[in-house]
Amino acid sequence: MEKETGRLEAFSDGVFAIAITLLVLELKVPHATEGGEISASMLAGNLLRQWPSYIALVTSFFTVLIMWVHHHVLFKLVRKTDATLLFTNGFLLLLVSVVPFPTAVLAEYLATPAAPAACEFYAGLFVLIGVAFYLLMRAAFRESIVDKQAPPERIRRLRRNYRLGPPLYTLAAAAAPFSPMAALAICTALWVFWAITTGEC
Amino acid sequence: MEKETGRLEAFSDGVFAIAITLLVLELKVPHATEGGEISASMLAGNLLRQWPSYIALVTSFFTVLIMWVHHHVLFKLVRKTDATLLFTNGFLLLLVSVVPFPTAVLAEYLATPAAPAACEFYAGLFVLIGVAFYLLMRAAFRESIVDKQAPPERIRRLRRNYRLGPPLYTLAAAAAPFSPMAALAICTALWVFWAITTGEC
Amino acid sequence: MEKETGRLEAFSDGVFAIAITLLVLELKVPHATEGGEISASMLAGNLLRQWPSYIALVTSFFTVLIMWVHHHVLFKLVRKTDATLLFTNGFLLLLVSVVPFPTAVLAEYLATPAAPAACEFYAGLFVLIGVAFYLLMRAAFRESIVDKQAPPERIRRLRRNYRLGPPLYTLAAAAAPFSPMAALAICTALWVFWAITTGEC
Amino acid sequence: MEKETGRLEAFSDGVFAIAITLLVLELKVPHATEGGEISASMLAGNLLRQWPSYIALVTSFFTVLIMWVHHHVLFKLVRKTDATLLFTNGFLLLLVSVVPFPTAVLAEYLATPAAPAACEFYAGLFVLIGVAFYLLMRAAFRESIVDKQAPPERIRRLRRNYRLGPPLYTLAAAAAPFSPMAALAICTALWVFWAITTGEC
Repeated sequence: MEKETGRLEAFSDGVFAIAITLLVLELKVPHATEGGEISASMLAGNLLRQWPSYIALVTSFFTVLIMWVHHHVLFKLVRKTDATLLFTNGFLLLLVSVVPFPTAVLAEYLATPAAPAACEFYAGLFVLIGVAFYLLMRAAFRESIVDKQAPPERIRRLRRNYRLGPPLYTLAAAAAPFSPMAALAICTALWVFWAITTGEC
Repeated sequence: MEKETGRLEAFSDGVFAIAITLLVLELKVPHATEGGEISASMLAGNLLRQWPSYIALVTSFFTVLIMWVHHHVLFKLVRKTDATLLFTNGFLLLLVSVVPFPTAVLAEYLATPAAPAACEFYAGLFVLIGVAFYLLMRAAFRESIVDKQAPPERIRRLRRNYRLGPPLYTLAAAAAPFSPMAALAICTALWVFWAITTGEC
Repeated sequence: MEKETGRLEAFSDGVFAIAITLLVLELKVPHATEGGEISASMLAGNLLRQWPSYIALVTSFFTVLIMWVHHHVLFKLVRKTDATLLFTNGFLLLLVSVVPFPTAVLAEYLATPAAPAACEFYAGLFVLIGVAFYLLMRAAFRESIVDKQAPPERIRRLRRNYRLGPPLYTLAAAAAPFSPMAALAICTALWVFWAITTGEC
Repeated sequence: MEKETGRLEAFSDGVFAIAITLLVLELKVPHATEGGEISASMLAGNLLRQWPSYIALVTSFFTVLIMWVHHHVLFKLVRKTDATLLFTNGFLLLLVSVVPFPTAVLAEYLATPAAPAACEFYAGLFVLIGVAFYLLMRAAFRESIVDKQAPPERIRRLRRNYRLGPPLYTLAAAAAPFSPMAALAICTALWVFWAITTGEC
């Protein structure tokens, strides 16, 4: 029984760990623009000019890390798995595994005129992830599989927090066309918020 | 004894989790066609135009996920490992690890005149995977390693289901030259079918 | 105590599983040689023309798989870890993690005049891996960490087998300049040999 | 309780194992400089000319391996997790997951005039990692979560060692503008030093 949850958690952990580590592939070694040699100061300049990549990576890294912590918190309250849990979890993992893509789009276009579309795309994925977490929470807290000994106070708090995810990320997505940076700031504020509200982990 | 199966399962889970997460590498950040800047609406258009990539990724993701669930179901009925199980399992893992490649081919050519060949290639891999699962099932249910307490009803049902894999995927492969979309629809229908028939997981 | 070996084995398994799955990245989606569209039959032809990649992948996949099995066999005979075991194991993992690179070189050049150098490079890595396995075996079977209950017969057999690795792979490397295909055939024969001699796994 | 640390350790191990294996992606198959065919001796020459890549990979591989060992040593002295440990550990994992990037930069520019900037960047990351390890050590050895039975002698030794990390890597970073090779040599000497001082692992 608990062994089932065990293997599901281990598989999910694997996907989280791989997705979070694949983010590094978004960073590209700068090349000399012309065939010519590149000097030390040019290389330093090129590395600094990639700041949007670093911001995108750090934001995505901590967001995925927080999601992993929350996934952990949620599964500690679950007694066993069933098909519904398996597929809502699968839907969440699909979205998590895909995070490196909008991150790379954001990194490439954050400092260009296309930033609004890139941020929209990025925030859009997190709206979906917010929905997936909400669905997973609903699947996890069903009478038939929830741990009977789970403190009701804790379940109530998680329920409330997870309901906040989709509207807050929608806010970020709505801000993107007007101010890409505001959208990013909301995304960052949100992972800090999830981190703090974890409290008990 | 069970520790052996444990490490084999953990290794297999690793390959499944990595293969499923590597699918994201198939998604490519769209670049400006000319040296010029790309506008927000152009970027949005380019991202939408990549719909074949998204379809390919989602189909492959859920197919691999279902395969992982079935792998799990199968190994719960096995008491210990031997060389035959190890190598049929190795053959399956080879095919699973390779899934990102036909997925990328499908993504690149689904919306082009080369779609029939791409779908053929894609469905062809799943024919092989169907065969590998059938062989793994046969290896797993041998007298010498099957769990004596496994419910015979369940083994009978799995036997029947796994026999269906190769012919059904062959049907998809046969449809590909005439209608790539029909081939893809069959592949999608099949993972939904495997998902439903899992029932007990 | 056994927990230490446990975490070392889990880490090693991770590296084996990732290296074996990264082999797929060596397969490249064929592109139209000119800007023009690619037809279904051209795509099919291009996919078939990549046969050296498929051979390279399958050979490397099964070789790494066999190495994982042997790693497993070896660690079952070890009671605890120490610095020497940790570093010989680290040296082996370095070489395992690097396998996708010579595999990609082999895939790209097997059907070209540069095949001798590519096969030399490929076989050369396996000479080093043979040496690493031999060193790991020596480290594992030291009085201070070997499992006292390990059957001496089994240790003797493993000792003999592992001594064969370096000379046999050196033979493959020596054959490469004259016949790349012979070198590859020896490499393939060797993983079949390791597979059979595993016997007890 | 210990299960929590267990899942955190497993997740961290995953990130270490993936980051260490992704280093191989930095190695690039050499291509013919012109459209023409490449001969066996040209391929051999090109593979040898990539020595900076091999040096960069080996240095990074063993550094990450040593970090993994130290992470292991540290967590054996911890009784449970809390938010602080989770986030200092997250900060360390972020930096570990990023190691393949400066490694690739180093590989590409070590044999060029831009080597000072590349080595600076590489050593700079390890300064940060040294800081992260120091912070993690402080978080781990707090009264509230440290294992009460941890030998004080051992904690004292670790405390002293980890305090050395940031200044010693800063020394490497300071040397980089004058002698890239000296910077690299210090980095190499440091992982040998960490390896030796591990002693008990």
